[in-house]
Amino acid sequence: MAALSSAIVLPSLAQDKEPVDMRKIMKTYFAPRVLSPEVHANQTVTFRYLAPNAQKVELNGQFLKKNLQMVKDENGIWTVTTGKIKPDIYPYEFIVDGVRVADPNNVDIFPNENFKGSLLDVKGKNPSLQDLQPVPHGKVIYSFYHSNTLDLERPLLIYTPAEYYENPTKKYPVLYLIHGMTDTHETWYKVGRMNYILDNLIAQGKAEPMIVVMPYANAMPALMKKNPGMRIDMRNIMGTDMFTNEMLKEIIPFIEKNYRVRSERESRAIAGFSLGGRQTLGCGLKHPELFAYVCPMAPAVFPQGMEESFKNDYAEAEKLRTLKLLWLGCGKDDSLCPGSKSLEKTLKKKQVPCEAMYTSGGHTWMNCRLFLSTIVPKLFK
Amino acid sequence: MAALSSAIVLPSLAQDKEPVDMRKIMKTYFAPRVLSPEVHANQTVTFRYLAPNAQKVELNGQFLKKNLQMVKDENGIWTVTTGKIKPDIYPYEFIVDGVRVADPNNVDIFPNENFKGSLLDVKGKNPSLQDLQPVPHGKVIYSFYHSNTLDLERPLLIYTPAEYYENPTKKYPVLYLIHGMTDTHETWYKVGRMNYILDNLIAQGKAEPMIVVMPYANAMPALMKKNPGMRIDMRNIMGTDMFTNEMLKEIIPFIEKNYRVRSERESRAIAGFSLGGRQTLGCGLKHPELFAYVCPMAPAVFPQGMEESFKNDYAEAEKLRTLKLLWLGCGKDDSLCPGSKSLEKTLKKKQVPCEAMYTSGGHTWMNCRLFLSTIVPKLFK
Repeated sequence: MAALSSAIVLPSLAQDKEPVDMRKIMKTYFAPRVLSPEVHANQTVTFRYLAPNAQKVELNGQFLKKNLQMVKDENGIWTVTTGKIKPDIYPYEFIVDGVRVADPNNVDIFPNENFKGSLLDVKGKNPSLQDLQPVPHGKVIYSFYHSNTLDLERPLLIYTPAEYYENPTKKYPVLYLIHGMTDTHETWYKVGRMNYILDNLIAQGKAEPMIVVMPYANAMPALMKKNPGMRIDMRNIMGTDMFTNEMLKEIIPFIEKNYRVRSERESRAIAGFSLGGRQTLGCGLKHPELFAYVCPMAPAVFPQGMEESFKNDYAEAEKLRTLKLLWLGCGKDDSLCPGSKSLEKTLKKKQVPCEAMYTSGGHTWMNCRLFLSTIVPKLFK
Repeated sequence: MAALSSAIVLPSLAQDKEPVDMRKIMKTYFAPRVLSPEVHANQTVTFRYLAPNAQKVELNGQFLKKNLQMVKDENGIWTVTTGKIKPDIYPYEFIVDGVRVADPNNVDIFPNENFKGSLLDVKGKNPSLQDLQPVPHGKVIYSFYHSNTLDLERPLLIYTPAEYYENPTKKYPVLYLIHGMTDTHETWYKVGRMNYILDNLIAQGKAEPMIVVMPYANAMPALMKKNPGMRIDMRNIMGTDMFTNEMLKEIIPFIEKNYRVRSERESRAIAGFSLGGRQTLGCGLKHPELFAYVCPMAPAVFPQGMEESFKNDYAEAEKLRTLKLLWLGCGKDDSLCPGSKSLEKTLKKKQVPCEAMYTSGGHTWMNCRLFLSTIVPKLFK
């Protein structure tokens, strides 16, 4: 029972003093709960997964170089304890006889259209910008706007800073923050922890209080539900006109009507990751008269086609030079990095100032949070 | 390819006109996406799951009497099409060689502490109260309060009705709405669709505009993270003192300080499902001076111990008779139904008025939404 007690959370009860039904309920409603992930004080982590009949269970996580084999105990619980993990928030999953599964005992899920992963949160000795701290908290509002273009009610997340409700006349600048391919409007919140990063930077006096708007940039799933038989057209996804139209005609007007925001370009920023970085460029560099801050993160752009984008899609260099900030971030191990290098080089050739940051690591949300923490203090100043 | 095109969402692209890298990207980032669930116009539904190496895949859903076997095609996609399903929102999962998994291609997840299920939404010909409709939308706010009792930042969801921001001086009544065992603060929103139900009832003039507060009633996971080695004590869970203390000392004061709410008992309601129903009774019937509306739904109470609860935990009958509404709902097939019947009988014996509703079906969120749709029009009138 020693192994059991370390692996399973067993509700304890003085059984002899309780009515019979209580034990029945425990059996019915309290399947013993497996504790996973268990982060130890030394930053090692134990993962557990109950599967008495499985033949092989592995742990796959973005903190690992390769999958770890898990070992089954006499209770059918597969377990592995990692080495020391650098404090951060990492996606992971179990691979159970080849089947990828989220950790059933972890409530922190990665919102995504075609996988279900879990999130491991390893804290350092001191709280970081991406940790929940006892500072004034902004609100993350789950809302909808009606898109006339799409004839759909579209979801939208809006972060309002803590002070928004204390200053009933003050107007705020807005950062439009776009997720990556297969992500949803929830990903910057649930994985990107944008609210903690903003709360902490504002509380430390390092960032201007601002509103952050997170649309669901991919309307295809909703359109396909509405129009059975419809299929994804790649050109709608890699092209950014549909996104830009939705931003300009629907989302920005909705925000400016319903929130106390400043509407001059110096108070409007756009940033996005991966495909959202491509959309950030397509929208922001086409409309420097609307956005003074344009911040692509590991954008899905490529050396081939770069000149064409500047020729066909973006505003002319003279106008791009009026941006208050063009900021570019990418991981050095990111397969999209050549696109970022090419973008930086092309901007330099055109004498458009661009601040570039190349981090270690790849196409990850660990880097996304670092990018966001880096740009937020630079905005609206 | 016919089978493939019906099962998989393939991005289409005029390949000869696109640069080479575009095709590489598609291959890297666009794994063909499996379309699941696909709800057909005749209310049958096709489920699909990609698992070329699996031996057996089944569909388990609360719309089924027993699991359905899925069949693998030449692309490794397991498929099953159901019969006609009654419009509603149902939890389901795949069982892949015995492993329970959420549908990786469905973004609608059931927030829960120890399983990861998906949600199927079958719409009827006319939109229902639980559907997103083009009416004014309230906001669902993800927020935190600091609990001095627990010394933790605790999450809290707050629904504010659409008109809240248009009437800057009006104060609103509050419904405190509690989830069930192993659910989280998100479950009434993501599964219970409380925002659609409120939006629609308010738009139809059938409900008073109100604020709805959804705490995360189970602090154990956070306490266990903070105190490694701590284990669940059943008495803290089945007892309701810890919950009641948190409500009275932390949550209600936080809401009354930070939102424009009416604070007399006639403007305060509490409702909850399952363990949340037990907590609703423990808190609401103990404090009829604070709550004029008490609405347990399939509460986790039992014939044994009923008299003791009235003797030890609840206020005396004379005070309970001052409630504006004591409403009880339970499914007839719910294993907890005998507890509800016993509660109703005991209240009758004590001459405390109680409105009871026994529906078909069991301990389900289909019933929860029906219960919520039923009580909301009765509140604050």
